[in-house]
Amino acid sequence: MEQRIEKDYLGEKQVPADAYYGIQTVRAQENFPITGYPPHPALIQSFGFVKKAAAMANRDVGNLNETLASAIVKAAEEVIEGKHNKEFVVDAIQGGAGTSFNMNANEVIANRAIEILGYKKGDYSRLSPNTHVNMAQSTNDTFPTAIHIAALKLAKGLQNVLDETIDTLKKKEKSFDEVIKMGRTHLQDAVPIRLGQEIGSYRRMLERDLGRIERALNNLNEVNMGATAVGTGLNAEPEYIETVTNYLSEITNLKLTGADHLVDATQNTDDYTELSASLKVLAINLSKMANDLRLMSSGPRTGLNEINLPARQPGSSIMPGKVNPVMAEVVNQVSFQVIGNDHTISLASEAGQLELNVMGPVLVFNLLQSLSILENGLCVFRRHALEGMTANIEKTKEMVHNSVGVVTAINPHVGYEVASRIAKEALNTGNSVKDICIERGILSEEELEEILKPQEMTKPGIAGSRFLE
Amino acid sequence: MEQRIEKDYLGEKQVPADAYYGIQTVRAQENFPITGYPPHPALIQSFGFVKKAAAMANRDVGNLNETLASAIVKAAEEVIEGKHNKEFVVDAIQGGAGTSFNMNANEVIANRAIEILGYKKGDYSRLSPNTHVNMAQSTNDTFPTAIHIAALKLAKGLQNVLDETIDTLKKKEKSFDEVIKMGRTHLQDAVPIRLGQEIGSYRRMLERDLGRIERALNNLNEVNMGATAVGTGLNAEPEYIETVTNYLSEITNLKLTGADHLVDATQNTDDYTELSASLKVLAINLSKMANDLRLMSSGPRTGLNEINLPARQPGSSIMPGKVNPVMAEVVNQVSFQVIGNDHTISLASEAGQLELNVMGPVLVFNLLQSLSILENGLCVFRRHALEGMTANIEKTKEMVHNSVGVVTAINPHVGYEVASRIAKEALNTGNSVKDICIERGILSEEELEEILKPQEMTKPGIAGSRFLE
Amino acid sequence: MEQRIEKDYLGEKQVPADAYYGIQTVRAQENFPITGYPPHPALIQSFGFVKKAAAMANRDVGNLNETLASAIVKAAEEVIEGKHNKEFVVDAIQGGAGTSFNMNANEVIANRAIEILGYKKGDYSRLSPNTHVNMAQSTNDTFPTAIHIAALKLAKGLQNVLDETIDTLKKKEKSFDEVIKMGRTHLQDAVPIRLGQEIGSYRRMLERDLGRIERALNNLNEVNMGATAVGTGLNAEPEYIETVTNYLSEITNLKLTGADHLVDATQNTDDYTELSASLKVLAINLSKMANDLRLMSSGPRTGLNEINLPARQPGSSIMPGKVNPVMAEVVNQVSFQVIGNDHTISLASEAGQLELNVMGPVLVFNLLQSLSILENGLCVFRRHALEGMTANIEKTKEMVHNSVGVVTAINPHVGYEVASRIAKEALNTGNSVKDICIERGILSEEELEEILKPQEMTKPGIAGSRFLE
Amino acid sequence: MEQRIEKDYLGEKQVPADAYYGIQTVRAQENFPITGYPPHPALIQSFGFVKKAAAMANRDVGNLNETLASAIVKAAEEVIEGKHNKEFVVDAIQGGAGTSFNMNANEVIANRAIEILGYKKGDYSRLSPNTHVNMAQSTNDTFPTAIHIAALKLAKGLQNVLDETIDTLKKKEKSFDEVIKMGRTHLQDAVPIRLGQEIGSYRRMLERDLGRIERALNNLNEVNMGATAVGTGLNAEPEYIETVTNYLSEITNLKLTGADHLVDATQNTDDYTELSASLKVLAINLSKMANDLRLMSSGPRTGLNEINLPARQPGSSIMPGKVNPVMAEVVNQVSFQVIGNDHTISLASEAGQLELNVMGPVLVFNLLQSLSILENGLCVFRRHALEGMTANIEKTKEMVHNSVGVVTAINPHVGYEVASRIAKEALNTGNSVKDICIERGILSEEELEEILKPQEMTKPGIAGSRFLE
Repeated sequence: MEQRIEKDYLGEKQVPADAYYGIQTVRAQENFPITGYPPHPALIQSFGFVKKAAAMANRDVGNLNETLASAIVKAAEEVIEGKHNKEFVVDAIQGGAGTSFNMNANEVIANRAIEILGYKKGDYSRLSPNTHVNMAQSTNDTFPTAIHIAALKLAKGLQNVLDETIDTLKKKEKSFDEVIKMGRTHLQDAVPIRLGQEIGSYRRMLERDLGRIERALNNLNEVNMGATAVGTGLNAEPEYIETVTNYLSEITNLKLTGADHLVDATQNTDDYTELSASLKVLAINLSKMANDLRLMSSGPRTGLNEINLPARQPGSSIMPGKVNPVMAEVVNQVSFQVIGNDHTISLASEAGQLELNVMGPVLVFNLLQSLSILENGLCVFRRHALEGMTANIEKTKEMVHNSVGVVTAINPHVGYEVASRIAKEALNTGNSVKDICIERGILSEEELEEILKPQEMTKPGIAGSRFLE
Repeated sequence: MEQRIEKDYLGEKQVPADAYYGIQTVRAQENFPITGYPPHPALIQSFGFVKKAAAMANRDVGNLNETLASAIVKAAEEVIEGKHNKEFVVDAIQGGAGTSFNMNANEVIANRAIEILGYKKGDYSRLSPNTHVNMAQSTNDTFPTAIHIAALKLAKGLQNVLDETIDTLKKKEKSFDEVIKMGRTHLQDAVPIRLGQEIGSYRRMLERDLGRIERALNNLNEVNMGATAVGTGLNAEPEYIETVTNYLSEITNLKLTGADHLVDATQNTDDYTELSASLKVLAINLSKMANDLRLMSSGPRTGLNEINLPARQPGSSIMPGKVNPVMAEVVNQVSFQVIGNDHTISLASEAGQLELNVMGPVLVFNLLQSLSILENGLCVFRRHALEGMTANIEKTKEMVHNSVGVVTAINPHVGYEVASRIAKEALNTGNSVKDICIERGILSEEELEEILKPQEMTKPGIAGSRFLE
Repeated sequence: MEQRIEKDYLGEKQVPADAYYGIQTVRAQENFPITGYPPHPALIQSFGFVKKAAAMANRDVGNLNETLASAIVKAAEEVIEGKHNKEFVVDAIQGGAGTSFNMNANEVIANRAIEILGYKKGDYSRLSPNTHVNMAQSTNDTFPTAIHIAALKLAKGLQNVLDETIDTLKKKEKSFDEVIKMGRTHLQDAVPIRLGQEIGSYRRMLERDLGRIERALNNLNEVNMGATAVGTGLNAEPEYIETVTNYLSEITNLKLTGADHLVDATQNTDDYTELSASLKVLAINLSKMANDLRLMSSGPRTGLNEINLPARQPGSSIMPGKVNPVMAEVVNQVSFQVIGNDHTISLASEAGQLELNVMGPVLVFNLLQSLSILENGLCVFRRHALEGMTANIEKTKEMVHNSVGVVTAINPHVGYEVASRIAKEALNTGNSVKDICIERGILSEEELEEILKPQEMTKPGIAGSRFLE
Repeated sequence: MEQRIEKDYLGEKQVPADAYYGIQTVRAQENFPITGYPPHPALIQSFGFVKKAAAMANRDVGNLNETLASAIVKAAEEVIEGKHNKEFVVDAIQGGAGTSFNMNANEVIANRAIEILGYKKGDYSRLSPNTHVNMAQSTNDTFPTAIHIAALKLAKGLQNVLDETIDTLKKKEKSFDEVIKMGRTHLQDAVPIRLGQEIGSYRRMLERDLGRIERALNNLNEVNMGATAVGTGLNAEPEYIETVTNYLSEITNLKLTGADHLVDATQNTDDYTELSASLKVLAINLSKMANDLRLMSSGPRTGLNEINLPARQPGSSIMPGKVNPVMAEVVNQVSFQVIGNDHTISLASEAGQLELNVMGPVLVFNLLQSLSILENGLCVFRRHALEGMTANIEKTKEMVHNSVGVVTAINPHVGYEVASRIAKEALNTGNSVKDICIERGILSEEELEEILKPQEMTKPGIAGSRFLE
């Protein structure tokens, strides 16, 4: 492979002749062969946005001439379009607080701009990755800003799929509104409930999750462009600082604003931990919901068998005919991954020191992964599990009928102590609560008819209370 | 010890004759000798609030007669006042989703009410823990409601101490506004910053934490009284449901409202995980801040020695004169505890099944502990570390003067590549950046005077740019 | 309250006149009102062991005279016996790397020894907490050593109860050996299994846990007495170092040895993280087992209802007759607490810096709590849940009979594809696998009798293969 | 793209005509577009091993004819060689407990074998993925077995790099043996120590880590081939069970043995959680070490500046000449990732139910990633940071000379109380401990010369004690 020679203040290195990236990227490749994963495409694109906006602002302020500026802008636009994704070769996990991401972007854009200007790659006397592409910038403002943009962009997908899932659940809630089934607490028979009520409970939970995520995302609209090295803004002119964020908003179609306190915005990472925490809470909720659906669909013959999830694939390589709730299982696993990611993010956040958190790369790797896999997982879960879910109405009705738990409705009429004796007898003999009550002369058949109406038992009120008065 | 005999549907048990608690509490004591810790006093008090409000509402609705109601109310008030804390003997960690907490409260209040009515403890024919004290209630609505109230009450203390800490930091921020020091990224010399800017960064971080916690607490104002067993409201009359929450608001001085969807409010625990997550984010932030202060106060002779924290206690049993940053260290440890607690809370939340999360006890144990220790830790941290913190102004000034990092300010005037060569020479020779620039004829002494003004380097702008134009 | 005045190099303080603790303990009380929990009794006792052994070794080496040594030994013995537990008043979570624990011990023992010598508390000219009780010691060797001893002592209880649990499971394994039930994977019907096999699986898992914990405990036999401040052994004579550990072994009845590399043994905490990790793995295993038992005992009417756990307490304050698997639930919660504790321990361990980990207090608080609650939780779980567990033999047999999963046994005789068709038909029609096979002429009744023998299906081998050959 | 039609008991699907995978793989692709990551190459290879060994054992037992067996073996060998890695297209995170991994392997091998036999892909009448390739197997034994093999293989790389790192540290330990520097506890000046002692402490820590990992790996030598669906061995002949593991050992060059209790080995995952825990402990240790190195190399002008790490890349896009400890930083981040992965693994392990843990895919994804990134991270850390690390001997010596901490050595000669007064005066006045002692007539110059010998202060013993006697 043909090589060109580049140098920096640590010495010289060979760079593949046709690469847009340069010496610092090559150093980073050598230093960080860790995961084998490249940066998330959304992060690459976001660096494109940042570099374009910075070049435009530097031009406006008069520090970057028109020719260089427009070459940088054009090169950055190609990055935004994803044309150079293969040139972003530094590992997702790396030392250096994202400097290698930023320099990879600076170098790719510089070399492409140099080409646009009609010169050869590597001829940094024409246009320098640091002096020009990175003008008035530092990794410490461009990287956090790029993270914000990437997270906001990716989150839109998750927000949409959450919205759709809430809609799907609303439909199911309605269609299952009359499906009476046994409620269970402690996995033990409790009192009747409607399947629609259960589904509604999941829906409301997800509505809160959506709100939580939106609140957390709001914080990310504030970016720290102009902070430069430590947040003091050294080398960034006040006019530039204002201009660059305006351009960035425009280019990204996001409502970005400049941070009031750039030192704070540069060193603190609680916006990320809050966002990750909101994703964790969503994950916990989804895992609980997936667990419930797996439990309710257990069977077909020796489980609860209250609901059916669509058959998506043969469930066993050895057991013919077996079908498993794979879409719910993958939701559990996505949830576990997101919860573990939140742990890594928390560790990375706590490890910030003084003016900077140098653990940004591992933090953003996990944060963007969480956003992506939640969107992906929820999308197929909704489509392949929730939409086609059906209820076994006869089975659930029969279970309510056979249960002892309905004795609770008798409680207000006879007191807890008497009701307990009835329950005990029912459990020991296998007889129904109703029969025992009649047999023992505790309540009349008419009263019991009223009290034990399944539908009534799923609503507030002392069942049959009017009758008794 | 004298004993009385009580019975329930599982059989008979001896109960200490003078105990207000009863048979179910005794069973729970036998079953759960786990941590040795009693329930948090705030939780006991909250059960008092709940039982009082329920008795009043049941009376209003006409299901509980005046005599019984007022005896229950009086007994509950004594619980609220903390008079019976010693009677709450079930372990903080227990099976049964809090049933033992609720029954402990029901029994204590019932027996005390029975006494008030002039009868003997244990004579449940007069007034029953289940039929009367627990009327129209279940553990599954009273326990979550009590958790909400306890958390809201405890959180007030934390909110106050956060407010005070923010005030203290504001004062420090102001008094340290002119203290120039070396900014550090990667623990490596970067560019100058003011100590006041650093303190301001902590202040703003805590302001966000306070906001986050307040938002999370807001959710807890919604309580599920009236949900009864599974959230359907079975055995709870609609009028009661409305009345009980109004009474509860009044009694607790909190702005409580009834949950719209009681099934959801009974089984889902994301309000807790969100609150805990907000405490975790605070903990992460506090730990980072404590780490910074420990680093900046390292020394006295062989560390950074930029600031001094008040000497609070001899630091070593063997090394005379040693003083350690113990108040910052305890903040780290409180933070680690809170982060670990959040983990337990997340596990407990995920383990909810169908109509109920039976892991409430371990969840609330950790949640209330987190609230308490954050308040306690922050209180002494503020008082014994932050308030008396001082700066070593001469030392920090000297470090800026000696640093190479100021070369960054020269960057816009000479380009990154030339500046790199200057930096390299400075590091290799030990000479100052200024001297090298003059010697090499790169910039004049006047220019450098302007460019390297420490105060200017801590603000946005290209230092000396006007001069150079 | 009467007070005496004590002083140290930071100034004077009032100390309650009758307290054995002194000024440094008072300072620590003021500094750390965090959890309200005192140190674990096992830790207090361990400090007694350490101080006794050190005094004896210092005496032997000739650095501590006989009179002082024997007074210290006598006072330390009282601490070992638990006579002064109330004097240990510093909070479980504290700054200072345990210095306050150590000084609390030094002061209590010094003042008690002073009394024994016939002088007044606080007269440190007679005998000094630092110079004499702490002679040749530092917090940085005594505290880790005390942690090791406390953990080893506490672990014995856990090891015993694990042993007993394994025995109980062995008995159950045997008594349930013939109970055929449906095996389930993905909560979906799979193939038959014996309940004894399932119980045996839990037993073996716990056997591995016991081995893991024992291996982790082995490391703790190595203690760092003599390391003093940073592990170099400054101020500790070589003869003392050897002697003190011998005495400590003798006094504690443990097989303690001195660490080879005292610097390593002073700063590194991986022995604790390994022990905690082994407890976490146990917790994960126990939680899985508890979940299984809760699932298998779900019902009584609308769940799996395969096994019965002893009824330990009424399960609901509102639902009469309800009984919940509370002993399994408390095991889940203990497990969650232990897993969360492991998280805190990991954070504390990672936060060690240079010569010392100053986060020892929160680490040991969590480690000893994990040991205690696992022992306590497992003890009642074994006694109140496992011992009395019974199987619903008829129910489980019936479920196997009705299942479609048995089609797997037919697989080797007809191929997976044909078997799949049979399974599908069985599920769709509700007919049995056997009937379909006969009806479709796939296998004869005799063959099927042989192939579908439930007992045979729970063992290796192609059921009925001999018959077919 | 040309397609062929395949069918299973859920219906028909199009499969790319030239794909070796089949219908079930296509279903899995549709169901699980989650991370975009394919299975780890080590896992693919391990499935090759398993399928080859199974075919040979089934042939020996007489259940698979020679022709089919040798075609399967040949196809499996190609998988082992990595020739078909691109055919393994199901996502790393998936529902179904690994069934899709297993079926992907079964289908690829079946179709390749069919081709070898001279037929067309998809013609399963010749050779079936389930009936033949998966003969006497289930996902539930092949997948765990493949995980064991993959982990054992990957771990070898980590073990090697740990070994090399220990060697590197040994060399550094020796070369730094005479470098006296200030020891620090609480980041505060303590007493002198040698840099070699500190490095030795890291070395010993890693030696323990290596031992811990080796012990955890030992468990994985036991595999559950023959367990089939739920561990009972249904459809697997006893001779096959024995044979298959022998073949597997031979083929893989590992010392594999068959599990004694196949039900246990099929459902329990504590071998994985133990291994992951041992990796977590390593990660904690590495992170602490990386933190120390970053601290000791802080500067160059305004930090501790005790050691130098090799310059690996420019440290800043804006600050010329800055060099950061990037190799240590990447170790921190790898550690955080591994700790987060351990969390996910723990969650997945706890979620096992009854006969199977269906969360295997997310578990193995994290486990193999942890093994890989630890190896990769440690490899570059050793090579690019540890090997070239140097000490600033003059600087560290000077710091010891200026410190007050040396007062500790005077302690045994004058008592803690007098030594405290000397320390206080030294700190207040800036005078040296030695000068104050002489001035105040506390010790003579000769005595102090002896007592304060730096080298002596880093070893056990009361410095100067012989002189004083």
